[in-house]
Amino acid sequence: MSAINLKIKKQISGALGRSGILSTPHGDIKTPAFVTVGTLAAVKALSPEELRSIGSQIVLGNTYHLYLQPGEDVVSDAGGMGKFMNWSGPTMTDSGGFQVFSLGFAYKKGVSKIAKEAPTEAELEGKDDDFQSEHSSLAKIDENGVTFKSHLDGSTHRFTPESSIAIQQKLGADMIFAFDECTSPLAEKIYMKKALARTHRWAKRCLDAHTKEDQALFGIVQGGRYKDLREESAKYIASLPFEGFGIGGSFDKDDMKEIVELVNKILPEDKPKHMLGIGEVEDLFEGIERGVDLFDCVIPTRLARHGVLFTKNGKFNIKKIENQRKFEPIVSGCECYACKNYTKAYLCHLLRAGEILGHRLASIHNLYFLVSLVDKIRESILKDYFFEFKKEFLKKYKKA
Amino acid sequence: MSAINLKIKKQISGALGRSGILSTPHGDIKTPAFVTVGTLAAVKALSPEELRSIGSQIVLGNTYHLYLQPGEDVVSDAGGMGKFMNWSGPTMTDSGGFQVFSLGFAYKKGVSKIAKEAPTEAELEGKDDDFQSEHSSLAKIDENGVTFKSHLDGSTHRFTPESSIAIQQKLGADMIFAFDECTSPLAEKIYMKKALARTHRWAKRCLDAHTKEDQALFGIVQGGRYKDLREESAKYIASLPFEGFGIGGSFDKDDMKEIVELVNKILPEDKPKHMLGIGEVEDLFEGIERGVDLFDCVIPTRLARHGVLFTKNGKFNIKKIENQRKFEPIVSGCECYACKNYTKAYLCHLLRAGEILGHRLASIHNLYFLVSLVDKIRESILKDYFFEFKKEFLKKYKKA
Repeated sequence: MSAINLKIKKQISGALGRSGILSTPHGDIKTPAFVTVGTLAAVKALSPEELRSIGSQIVLGNTYHLYLQPGEDVVSDAGGMGKFMNWSGPTMTDSGGFQVFSLGFAYKKGVSKIAKEAPTEAELEGKDDDFQSEHSSLAKIDENGVTFKSHLDGSTHRFTPESSIAIQQKLGADMIFAFDECTSPLAEKIYMKKALARTHRWAKRCLDAHTKEDQALFGIVQGGRYKDLREESAKYIASLPFEGFGIGGSFDKDDMKEIVELVNKILPEDKPKHMLGIGEVEDLFEGIERGVDLFDCVIPTRLARHGVLFTKNGKFNIKKIENQRKFEPIVSGCECYACKNYTKAYLCHLLRAGEILGHRLASIHNLYFLVSLVDKIRESILKDYFFEFKKEFLKKYKKA
Repeated sequence: MSAINLKIKKQISGALGRSGILSTPHGDIKTPAFVTVGTLAAVKALSPEELRSIGSQIVLGNTYHLYLQPGEDVVSDAGGMGKFMNWSGPTMTDSGGFQVFSLGFAYKKGVSKIAKEAPTEAELEGKDDDFQSEHSSLAKIDENGVTFKSHLDGSTHRFTPESSIAIQQKLGADMIFAFDECTSPLAEKIYMKKALARTHRWAKRCLDAHTKEDQALFGIVQGGRYKDLREESAKYIASLPFEGFGIGGSFDKDDMKEIVELVNKILPEDKPKHMLGIGEVEDLFEGIERGVDLFDCVIPTRLARHGVLFTKNGKFNIKKIENQRKFEPIVSGCECYACKNYTKAYLCHLLRAGEILGHRLASIHNLYFLVSLVDKIRESILKDYFFEFKKEFLKKYKKA
């Protein structure tokens, strides 16, 4: 019995990309779709009504954060994450793997899922030891699971594949992810191989642990920027009875296209593919072209907090003093609530003064921009002008 | 020519209190009314649409804060505070006097407009020198005005009666206040007398400086907890051609009733009276009974930030762990957006986790509570059951 079902409506001719309808226990999602991140069962200052008006179809919560506060039992007793936050639409949770990782190595190094620059072999030489010791500073991985410290109070906790699934079952989202190790983009291949083999053993354990029938479990393909490892991972994960697939981060921006294509050629066509933690404009186009159906990313709300706003001509910082007297729409032509009702000058003022209404308005704008960009991409697939749209959009966007 | 006009509809029999309609250039206000404080031309996380749905009739901005950021010229170029923040209804600004004061003496002593305990004569003895030196630490008062330091960057600034009016004219609110010295409730009478005489000279200068015809200037009655000074102040301020009157804080809670009654008996009946910075439930009833038409207070949003919520049975802290599993309306029977859509458990979680949606929901609830309480009081005046309503409401409220 499947908890979800993907019906493909239209394929991009000559590419893996497609548009379809993903049915979930809490409603249908038109794909491709940009998933709104609601880490602690709240999308920053935004209400569910605002999410709907932005066009958001689905909210993703973070297992690591919800486990720490308020705890999965509270969320379960509330009727699950959606009910808890008064969001009636589809929901997902991640497995907590990335947060455990990011509190270890990446936490100290400041790296994200994508390395800014590909590390050279020389740079990587001898990194394995470093990596291991850094990694173990806040999180310690063994065959059975990960022991880590809470970023809130330093208390020690442990996730295993089984406990991650148990927590996610209690959080009760429509779609959940297998517990994996998300290695650093800077990790050496020898470490990646070991980590990948363990992630594969964990994938099997997650499937065994998962019992909730109205919830779809997604397997995660890892392997960093190494094509042979990605291929191995995609083949193995595809062989298991997952209802959908996540493509784990940790690769170079330059490799990403090639790897996503390679992976999605192997994964079963009729199942949804989710690209974890990716949400830059170019990545959306490239991912969708290569068969990605879902994206989640904190970029829109995180950048909003810093005053960085998306426009079709690239990003700009509204907090700059040059915007203080611009009594014109925040982004001209934008149909979001913020742009239709307030000026650049006002948002500049709010964010410079640290007023939380500023975060709210900037988040609305950025989420609207990315959600509706993916809507437009979907439209271009359905009406057969994806490549024209991509070319035209990115020409303007990159030029800026 | 008057910028505003108060039409009294109904008097509380046997008391000074009344209900009426205050017409302003940006619309009518049903009085008595609770004024929503939007310090920096924003009411915390709330949109103007939310203010309207709360029932808010008018927003008050702070001259001190808006002068520092973004500056009165920016607000003026935007078309005034209301237009700047996309609020089409009536607006007020304070004079900056209280902020200058609170950055001086009170800033260090942690006292508010109301002293918790009346200082004894013995305690007050010799306080004048102390007070003067403390007061001058961040703000220095002379006959012409006040020199003070910005709380943002420590830079030095100066307000005079003339500059306060010039700034408020640029901010462009419908109603503005004369620049006064709001003395500490702990100040000695000898200092109070000096300060009051100066405030009276400043009142005259504010009238002379004010030229904007579609904007009403309110005079402020001061005099602390001293009845003779209050009487003197009310008589003098009443003799000047102000369009409305503010009753300045700085008295003991116990004295407040008596002083408000004394002052309002002297001030012209047909002009609006605004009680500055007061907004506790008992104070609203007592003030309205004694002829106060308008109140502003940051209490609802400030308490919201700390998780303290108003109910008709008194206040409680939603952040307490005991609320973590209460899957019931935040305040049962409350008709606000927060209470109709979310549970105690969810708001407890949001505020404990520091999520800004929590501040937003708690602010909506507290503002709704106070705005609609004043609405109910108004109704009770119009329908002739003010005293019954007051008695019944306060019995429950105080008992808790």
